Amino acid sequence: MTKYVIGLDYGTDSARAVVVDAGSGETVATAVKYYPRWRQGLYCDPASNRYRQHPQDYIDVLEGSVREALAACPAGTAENVVGIAFDTTGSTPVFTDAAGTPLALLPEFAENPNAMFVLWKDHTAIKEAAEINRACKECAVDYSVYEGGIYSSEWFWAKALHVLRSDEAVRRAAHSIVEHCEWMPALLTGVASSKDIVRSRCAQGHKAMWHPSWGGLPSEEFLTGLDPLLGGFRERLFTDTETADKPVGNLTPEWATRLSLSTDVVVAGGAFDCHMGAVGAGITPHTFVRVIGTSTCDVMVAPYDEIGDKLIRGICGQVDGSVIPGMIGLEAGQSAFGDIYAWFRQVLEFPLRGLEPALREQISEGLIPALSEAAAAIPVSESAIVATDWMNGRRTPDANQLLKGAITGLTLGSDAPRIFRALVEATAFGSRAIVERFRGEGVRIDKVIGIGGIALKSPFVMQILSDILEMPIQVCRTDQACALGAAMFAATAAGLYARVEDAQGAMSSGFATEYRPRPENAALYRTLYEKYLALGAFTEKELLTR
Amino acid sequence: MTKYVIGLDYGTDSARAVVVDAGSGETVATAVKYYPRWRQGLYCDPASNRYRQHPQDYIDVLEGSVREALAACPAGTAENVVGIAFDTTGSTPVFTDAAGTPLALLPEFAENPNAMFVLWKDHTAIKEAAEINRACKECAVDYSVYEGGIYSSEWFWAKALHVLRSDEAVRRAAHSIVEHCEWMPALLTGVASSKDIVRSRCAQGHKAMWHPSWGGLPSEEFLTGLDPLLGGFRERLFTDTETADKPVGNLTPEWATRLSLSTDVVVAGGAFDCHMGAVGAGITPHTFVRVIGTSTCDVMVAPYDEIGDKLIRGICGQVDGSVIPGMIGLEAGQSAFGDIYAWFRQVLEFPLRGLEPALREQISEGLIPALSEAAAAIPVSESAIVATDWMNGRRTPDANQLLKGAITGLTLGSDAPRIFRALVEATAFGSRAIVERFRGEGVRIDKVIGIGGIALKSPFVMQILSDILEMPIQVCRTDQACALGAAMFAATAAGLYARVEDAQGAMSSGFATEYRPRPENAALYRTLYEKYLALGAFTEKELLTR
Repeated sequence: MTKYVIGLDYGTDSARAVVVDAGSGETVATAVKYYPRWRQGLYCDPASNRYRQHPQDYIDVLEGSVREALAACPAGTAENVVGIAFDTTGSTPVFTDAAGTPLALLPEFAENPNAMFVLWKDHTAIKEAAEINRACKECAVDYSVYEGGIYSSEWFWAKALHVLRSDEAVRRAAHSIVEHCEWMPALLTGVASSKDIVRSRCAQGHKAMWHPSWGGLPSEEFLTGLDPLLGGFRERLFTDTETADKPVGNLTPEWATRLSLSTDVVVAGGAFDCHMGAVGAGITPHTFVRVIGTSTCDVMVAPYDEIGDKLIRGICGQVDGSVIPGMIGLEAGQSAFGDIYAWFRQVLEFPLRGLEPALREQISEGLIPALSEAAAAIPVSESAIVATDWMNGRRTPDANQLLKGAITGLTLGSDAPRIFRALVEATAFGSRAIVERFRGEGVRIDKVIGIGGIALKSPFVMQILSDILEMPIQVCRTDQACALGAAMFAATAAGLYARVEDAQGAMSSGFATEYRPRPENAALYRTLYEKYLALGAFTEKELLTR
Repeated sequence: MTKYVIGLDYGTDSARAVVVDAGSGETVATAVKYYPRWRQGLYCDPASNRYRQHPQDYIDVLEGSVREALAACPAGTAENVVGIAFDTTGSTPVFTDAAGTPLALLPEFAENPNAMFVLWKDHTAIKEAAEINRACKECAVDYSVYEGGIYSSEWFWAKALHVLRSDEAVRRAAHSIVEHCEWMPALLTGVASSKDIVRSRCAQGHKAMWHPSWGGLPSEEFLTGLDPLLGGFRERLFTDTETADKPVGNLTPEWATRLSLSTDVVVAGGAFDCHMGAVGAGITPHTFVRVIGTSTCDVMVAPYDEIGDKLIRGICGQVDGSVIPGMIGLEAGQSAFGDIYAWFRQVLEFPLRGLEPALREQISEGLIPALSEAAAAIPVSESAIVATDWMNGRRTPDANQLLKGAITGLTLGSDAPRIFRALVEATAFGSRAIVERFRGEGVRIDKVIGIGGIALKSPFVMQILSDILEMPIQVCRTDQACALGAAMFAATAAGLYARVEDAQGAMSSGFATEYRPRPENAALYRTLYEKYLALGAFTEKELLTR
């Protein structure tokens, strides 16, 4: 009898439920649901970079998406679902009460953004992140070392401290803090105390400075030194974390009914979308997996005997088991990738202001394809504009949110396609800088796997990326690599596979496309990359400090 | 009885005849005629930067413009015209026969671009300019020192040598070489031998390396060392030059008839448009006069006792009497000013490709005004994008045609108006760099006078220019400052004034507008200017050499 698993991928705007054949990895059905409150813009304030999501949004889309996906499957499928797993965005934490319930689910906090999940891209905690960085450097133990050495405003403790300082009511009610990817499994398995929530190795290791070498979370002294408001949380939170291949429990009767599944269904541990996506994409040691969209999230795994305890400088963390249990998961990324192309499109849209909305929309939608087509026709020998990709700061290598982008080599003949091409090259140079940092720190990289919107949709960008990285890039056949990865964890947690790698071997989607570097472009691009590095160094050392 | 003079301003595309009251300076009538062959694109090849003008074009518009302007004047005006003067573009030389006739006026050369005037912006002689620069540095006498130390492909000897090498027929027929501003007076006064053409101090001093300290033009050895093809020209050309206030002669009976004027009319010496424009604009010592259009031409005058024989580094020449007789004329300029705004407009027009031409044209025409309006609304404190103005290379200070432009400080929030504003600030920073070079070399500058299209039409640009230069800028009331300057020379040559300064005192148009620097912006702009300088130095020293 064929067994099925359900991968649940909770993205920024919507959630996907994907029913997968646990033997072949074949996708049987997919359903997508948008978060209703989020879609209306509730609880957010883009002007102050405040982005909050209501826990009820997550609940609402869960039932709808799973039921819809199952309804699209052949009869008998639901009965043979054996496991489900969640991947979510992160760091996306929320304060809970002692029962582990997000505060916004309590009537008195139902409309309070500070009682909701603080979405990964919420930047309200910039000040708190700076305080944490200062404290880490002043402390005998630098708790940030396994997170690349620079703590971000997008992460767990910065956000928690910011909310505690901002909201007295939340402060009084706050008992614990949970990440989105931890809460979903806890919800479905009926956890009744915040202490019993299974904690994600991925989330806590990459974002909350959890590490076995200092006994878990940073010390109480460190946390209260940051602010007495953090006092007591460490004790109430947790000591241990688990990898996502471990079962968290089974569906409660209530959730089994709501999802039309059996209470035998095993719920796996949760992890971040890019990490499960890397598994779904077929990550192995020495493979650089990139989720390429508005930004990139780059993931690698390395056997412990290759990395050991060596600290990799300037990346976004190294955590044992955060991707594949038994290996060190390494995270990096570019703060902007497709966002840079979208920015240029927006600049070019200025003359369209006065046009009627339909025409304007039509021109706008065709703009990046038209730029790509025109840019692809320009001989690479004419690439002479050199840009950096820091229009949204730099995440890796060596995070610096203050950096800004630059475009040089402009002449009166530099037209829009030439500038666009330079921006594409810049995003690829930024990618190369990450690869070179990994290699410089002793991490071997042989090939690249791409997933995400740009990997699937832009051959122009992917070919230049391959040329500049001087490596082949394989693009997954599935456009749901994150959900597929979650399905692999579900199948492993349900006992169908002994190891995540075995699930990968059986369930992989394979690759739709492979881009190969064009050797004739290598020399020119190496020269331009030298200019990119020089421009970057100048920007960081000279422009930023004046 | 009121006396009148006619200023004839020969620009790139058209010529203007302006009839001026020689006592008050009031403009009585103006007529504009476009060069007919040039307008059809004849004899030019933009792809190779070859721009040639047929001498017959100049003749054709002369009669038409003067007659039309006179026809618009009150009865009796023509009879009281006492002088005329020409200003033209330059360096715009042509080969002539022994009679001083441009070769293209001979039937056998009528269609040969090499027998025509080589327009100022013709860049076919880049190789020859490089050879001249090399020869100057290797020679015991550096003949380029009074021209800023760097000889341009736009100038006299480079163009002459290029044409000689390119065209055997022209080479065999070429007896002498004449600048456009010298030929017009020679034509009207009936000069019958190339030896008798009165030579322009302005043209020859700024563009042909003429200087009294080495006895006029560069030595025969220097010229034949460059190429034996130049042998004999020095002897056949001239030794002396004259300032433009001196009469060249009277109208011949033929030209008096053709122009409906008397043979008593005095023809003044010729000079370049910007130089006469500076006089028309009211130049005095310590005043920086700028013709601000697609590029800028910047002119100053300094009494000999202020400058002496001191060489001003990196400008476009210092010539005794090139602007006002008895003072040192100093020339500088930016290779692109309005051209940078036009470039950005062209980049922004990419999305308009598919629109119907009329709508496209309408949007295009409104673009720079709309950008200016939106940019003006941005608080100066938000100016954080720093650009350089070298999209067309750099003319002054320290000419370097290889330099390119840069834009830094870009974020995902950098919209089109913010980038436009940064480009405007960049052109103003480029202006400040020229001012600071002059001052660094001991030339005092107290105020600025602006003429040209941008000075007249863009308060937004002019206010930022004033803020960044930290000086008041006066904009002339007349939009025909060059022709008015020519009229002042005509009046002086005709004996109505003893000196050009007296003509200025009587005939000035006064100022329409004055922009005053906003002191509250000074500190920020000084900081941004430091970044501009740092970015420029990086571009020149690092990017250019990799």
